[in-house]
Amino acid sequence: MSKRIDSTPKADGFRMPGEFEPQQQIFMIWPERPDNWRDGGKPAQKAFVDVAKAISEFAEMTMLVSASQYQVARKMLPPQIRVIEMSSNDSWVRDCGPTFVINDKGGIRGVDWKFNAWGGLFDGLYFPWDQDDLIARKICDMERIDTYRTEDFVLEGGSIHVDGEGTVMTTEMCLLSPGRNPHMSREQIENMLKDHLNIEKVIWVKDGIDPEETNGHIDDVACFVRPGEVACIWTDNKEDPFYETCMEAYETLKEATDAKGRKLKVHKLTMPEVPVTIKGDFAIDEVEGTIPREDGDICIASYMNFLIVNDGVIVPQYGDRLDGLALEQIRDMFPDKKVVGVNTREIVYGGGNIHCITQQQPKV
Amino acid sequence: MSKRIDSTPKADGFRMPGEFEPQQQIFMIWPERPDNWRDGGKPAQKAFVDVAKAISEFAEMTMLVSASQYQVARKMLPPQIRVIEMSSNDSWVRDCGPTFVINDKGGIRGVDWKFNAWGGLFDGLYFPWDQDDLIARKICDMERIDTYRTEDFVLEGGSIHVDGEGTVMTTEMCLLSPGRNPHMSREQIENMLKDHLNIEKVIWVKDGIDPEETNGHIDDVACFVRPGEVACIWTDNKEDPFYETCMEAYETLKEATDAKGRKLKVHKLTMPEVPVTIKGDFAIDEVEGTIPREDGDICIASYMNFLIVNDGVIVPQYGDRLDGLALEQIRDMFPDKKVVGVNTREIVYGGGNIHCITQQQPKV
Repeated sequence: MSKRIDSTPKADGFRMPGEFEPQQQIFMIWPERPDNWRDGGKPAQKAFVDVAKAISEFAEMTMLVSASQYQVARKMLPPQIRVIEMSSNDSWVRDCGPTFVINDKGGIRGVDWKFNAWGGLFDGLYFPWDQDDLIARKICDMERIDTYRTEDFVLEGGSIHVDGEGTVMTTEMCLLSPGRNPHMSREQIENMLKDHLNIEKVIWVKDGIDPEETNGHIDDVACFVRPGEVACIWTDNKEDPFYETCMEAYETLKEATDAKGRKLKVHKLTMPEVPVTIKGDFAIDEVEGTIPREDGDICIASYMNFLIVNDGVIVPQYGDRLDGLALEQIRDMFPDKKVVGVNTREIVYGGGNIHCITQQQPKV
Repeated sequence: MSKRIDSTPKADGFRMPGEFEPQQQIFMIWPERPDNWRDGGKPAQKAFVDVAKAISEFAEMTMLVSASQYQVARKMLPPQIRVIEMSSNDSWVRDCGPTFVINDKGGIRGVDWKFNAWGGLFDGLYFPWDQDDLIARKICDMERIDTYRTEDFVLEGGSIHVDGEGTVMTTEMCLLSPGRNPHMSREQIENMLKDHLNIEKVIWVKDGIDPEETNGHIDDVACFVRPGEVACIWTDNKEDPFYETCMEAYETLKEATDAKGRKLKVHKLTMPEVPVTIKGDFAIDEVEGTIPREDGDICIASYMNFLIVNDGVIVPQYGDRLDGLALEQIRDMFPDKKVVGVNTREIVYGGGNIHCITQQQPKV
């Protein structure tokens, strides 16, 4: 049922919709690898359950899980959440899952980007990534959705945000990184985005906040709230390790125009007052490639990594003094949506957050 | 999405439809275990592809496959066939898959019978069978279908055939076997069938033709062609190893009345002229429990193990002189359907046939 289509979404009249457009369902992948998630993944699994439950108030929710953890996940998740056996190398379906594109006749297709674990053998985060690279196709096959495959172009869903009206934003740090598509020029990369997302304008933000992990995905830095409006991370604290990046992104977005020639309205979203850090001893299996996590290490934690899902917005919370301010700022951006906070410290410890562990299938 | 329902189909107004009623899709499981399928499963995989292709002319077709064989199956099967990763212990989805029940309001549910590999630790065919026993629930979860689970009652789909109007037929050899439900009386077993298939009448055929394997499943012996009409295996050859069983089943069905009080019309379906036998050396991994297959061994092969699928009937063929007669007899039973033969010798070598390796989901 999942035919490979040998053209491009743009050529066929399909576009990636904004995350704020109607959604059918959300996919997640159960966390378990003990060389990334502390204590055998048990604390992270609880946090994933919390996120999945919050999402399931606003859209259908499907959890993908390995054969060995199937019964555990089925038991921990409520019956309205669909649990599907699927192998993976880790839990980042934003990045290895499909980017869905739709047309105005009720059609939907998936873009199955080549995935190489954020940098392949150059600076990727684990090896192998073969099962992750099959996730997009398996999801689309299950849902009877045809796919486009970019065999010569690596991309992760977390590195792009679109407005659904011709504009994508991304970071140079990631898309021009040597571990992705070093054989392609900036212009060629822009053309791949144009052809596969059906956009005309690329807004390039310089850096993300996690150069060592995803090479600076945009989804920790900024997103579209609606066409013509974006949110951007912000801090007044010059001592904040992410201060420079926040300022630079904010300035770039303030200056930018979108595909329709509009100047963007930029909403500020606070960073946590105190950077989230590793606390105490972490029981993580040490194998080749394990990223050490030591007491006091700063984690990558912004409030930006939220998920917009129909009438809801699911937002990370850390137990920080500014948790409430972040919720308030997001409520101001989305006055018609219910803003729900979920404590995601355990997800941050594994290297991501709510947006990284979810992938939306638009409603058609 | 797959809620467990704590009542019975009968109580809720759901019934198992006849196989000749409209179908939505067919499930199969990819063969691979090298201790059952010769030559690493490669010849059987080709035969499964042939069966799946034949079926896909008449209904949607979903192939379930292990993670390790996913790419192989995806490549060997045409794009209109959906390929889904799912673990199993072997390939008999008729027996481990769900029995779907429907109501007259467009509702569908699954009966998730307890599965114990045709006899559990008493005389089952392999150990463990844990992944097989999860198949029904995984299928139903994937398709967003709620289930009834019979935690204290073992049954395989191949041991029953219904007319959709209140009658089931089965065999004593299987349903009263000591490896299934020795804690239950014949009457209690009848009541389980009545409650879960929503039937009033059980027609008991004495024996099947494979006492050592499935303990005599009905689906090698007889089936409903339509309400009031059945097909039954037949041979005039007194030397045929299955002669007695054929006669006895035929006599039973000739005498039987169904739930509506009708005498049954019984169509004869020939056995192969020459029993199918193992030919030559079979490369099968020898592990604990492997069933030896030696040159000259008689295989269980009747033409009855066909699948009715909407406007088609998919029928086993063996290269026997009576292959054509079997097709002709089945065409006479189903004058409005297209009867398609597929050579299934390689499936027979593994212990089953077309009906055993398929499970239909009715259309609602």
